Amino acid sequence: MIKRVYFDHNATTPPHENVVKGLGESLENWGNPSSIHWAGRKAKGELREARKSVARFLGVDPLELIFTSGGSEANNLAIQGALGFQRLLGRDEIVVSSVEHPSLLKTAEMMTQFGYRVHKIPVNREGELDLEFLLNRLSERTALVSVMWANNETGHVFPVQQVSEMAHNVGSLMHCDFVQGLGKTTLSLSSLNLDMASLSGHKFYALKGVGALYVKKGTNLSSHIFGGSQERGRRAGTENLLAIASLGRVCELQSSLALEIKKVEELRDYLEDRVFNAVSDVRVTGQKNLRIGNTSHLSFEGVDGESLLMNLDLKGIALSSGAACSSGSREPSPILLAMGFAPWEAQQTLRVSLGWSNTKDEVDYFVEELVKTVSRLRLIRATRTVLDGQV
Amino acid sequence: MIKRVYFDHNATTPPHENVVKGLGESLENWGNPSSIHWAGRKAKGELREARKSVARFLGVDPLELIFTSGGSEANNLAIQGALGFQRLLGRDEIVVSSVEHPSLLKTAEMMTQFGYRVHKIPVNREGELDLEFLLNRLSERTALVSVMWANNETGHVFPVQQVSEMAHNVGSLMHCDFVQGLGKTTLSLSSLNLDMASLSGHKFYALKGVGALYVKKGTNLSSHIFGGSQERGRRAGTENLLAIASLGRVCELQSSLALEIKKVEELRDYLEDRVFNAVSDVRVTGQKNLRIGNTSHLSFEGVDGESLLMNLDLKGIALSSGAACSSGSREPSPILLAMGFAPWEAQQTLRVSLGWSNTKDEVDYFVEELVKTVSRLRLIRATRTVLDGQV
Repeated sequence: MIKRVYFDHNATTPPHENVVKGLGESLENWGNPSSIHWAGRKAKGELREARKSVARFLGVDPLELIFTSGGSEANNLAIQGALGFQRLLGRDEIVVSSVEHPSLLKTAEMMTQFGYRVHKIPVNREGELDLEFLLNRLSERTALVSVMWANNETGHVFPVQQVSEMAHNVGSLMHCDFVQGLGKTTLSLSSLNLDMASLSGHKFYALKGVGALYVKKGTNLSSHIFGGSQERGRRAGTENLLAIASLGRVCELQSSLALEIKKVEELRDYLEDRVFNAVSDVRVTGQKNLRIGNTSHLSFEGVDGESLLMNLDLKGIALSSGAACSSGSREPSPILLAMGFAPWEAQQTLRVSLGWSNTKDEVDYFVEELVKTVSRLRLIRATRTVLDGQV
Repeated sequence: MIKRVYFDHNATTPPHENVVKGLGESLENWGNPSSIHWAGRKAKGELREARKSVARFLGVDPLELIFTSGGSEANNLAIQGALGFQRLLGRDEIVVSSVEHPSLLKTAEMMTQFGYRVHKIPVNREGELDLEFLLNRLSERTALVSVMWANNETGHVFPVQQVSEMAHNVGSLMHCDFVQGLGKTTLSLSSLNLDMASLSGHKFYALKGVGALYVKKGTNLSSHIFGGSQERGRRAGTENLLAIASLGRVCELQSSLALEIKKVEELRDYLEDRVFNAVSDVRVTGQKNLRIGNTSHLSFEGVDGESLLMNLDLKGIALSSGAACSSGSREPSPILLAMGFAPWEAQQTLRVSLGWSNTKDEVDYFVEELVKTVSRLRLIRATRTVLDGQV
């Protein structure tokens, strides 16, 4: 039987064993939390407890959380929900990093049809955000600044606290796509001084179908989904309690979080060390800069990332050559292009994103197969080049 | 131990045993369906099969389904997604029934701020839609007509096929909130000649967190959630596969559907017979009109519906005095007010909505407790009236 190794945790994570164990109990709470009878009250009770657990984990007030269907909806709600009120104040400009997730970037771009202007902050190929550009774009017309906690493809952590301070200095709202932050930093959300932050459950060992938008008390926000009065009238629709409860259960693991983060980071560093020792002409994107501890973005000179990915997949190793939401497309990653990679350079990359259950043995197996595959692909390429020369 | 009887299936349904049984298998498919490696392919395979099952059940093409987080999102997507294209054709009027679900009605009302006009078709207290009103409002400016399959509170079935024909005669799009139709009629969606229809999983024995918008091939629709290219670019966000697969599993029960519907309808009729024989001064709203077979909307003269509900809840019987999404509010049901009930009349009602697993024994228990409770509440009221008279 083929060995299965999963190194693609920035795309999605397997549900934590506590999540799986808790499912039976949650299934008992199938009532509609809006119903006032016994079935509804049971469900409502579990919803309340889950909200408290998530809020405690983040260091925020339970009422500051709006549960959504996921991170994409949270990003859409933040952008589409906040701008109307800001425009009433004469603010109609959005400043975002150029490497945001599509659910943020495309939504911001969509808003230009309503007369909003979008400024994209450059990020260089080492993963550094151009703070001077940001400073020059900020003004009394800035409605919203949105910079992600960490990039999903390269793992670079952005100076969100500093950006937030700059945004607030001109009276703008500050939003952060915190999807790659959840479970990868011990900082509490409340310490970041944000007005809004997007979260996703399934990138954090919970079930798919749940995310949240943190909205600081006092922040004006329109609904994105209209109807019932769920989430204090800010997000209609019967709550996906099974998934919400699963996120609550992961958040209850807070006491072991620092240890998990440390373990994963050590494993990632071990992996990079081993790759450097075993493979020539390889580099880590922005290795010297601050990165989330689970991610390694690797470039292999003269190797097609997609071929590498598929060959390693045949060996049971799951990796990514870009964000999952654009996988399957043969286009080079828009994020890497925005960072100044040439298309051919972008196509030589591979993303490794580790998770809590990965082991040293799995890393060893990966490196072993990587070495073989890179050599073979380079040999094929060299042979072709020689043969092409002979034609 | 208190006996538990659940008679509130229009609010939500318990997951079907096949759904519960299938969870273990679905949990194995935790990969991101957009990933191209083994974990992603397994998930994508299950997603494809579930989509096929749902499409087969509805008699539509799998590509005509957009999975959403639920019925509310589907209604929002239909309204918010379709109108922009219609306006380009000079169409800016929306015609909806006055008893639509809030996720339809509030979204339509919200669109008036963008210059759209909303006409609400009256429904009388017997549950009949005013087709003449509709006819008079239809014109070359009609962008969208939206009439629900059946009302969630009273159970009345509307002449959707006829409305659709009328809408199409003036070149309008036709949408139907089919949330209370799924599993309550054997008619296939394709036979209704709709352009769009909203569905919800958790009203049909699947998990919460999944719904769908049926969109007939060739219908122009904008996204409501922007980002990744899931659902053919029409709804971004990692798919909630666990819930989608659960809906697929329920749809696979198609062969027993007609029998379940018949069984439930017979039980409902038995319940109404027994209530009529046992309680005086009770009526069923629009009893002679076409209703979905599981619902009975009852008025008890001189009895406060909320008190009745709470007293029966103490006996373990779960019922509703209005839609779950507005439960907890002491306001009379907006749907009943729209149908011409006076507030005090609306507050004398109770909704019974049966499901596949309900039994005759449960109905007998309900009737027994109902008789006692109604008598007691009427006695208390009579005593108070007398006492008030003495003051």
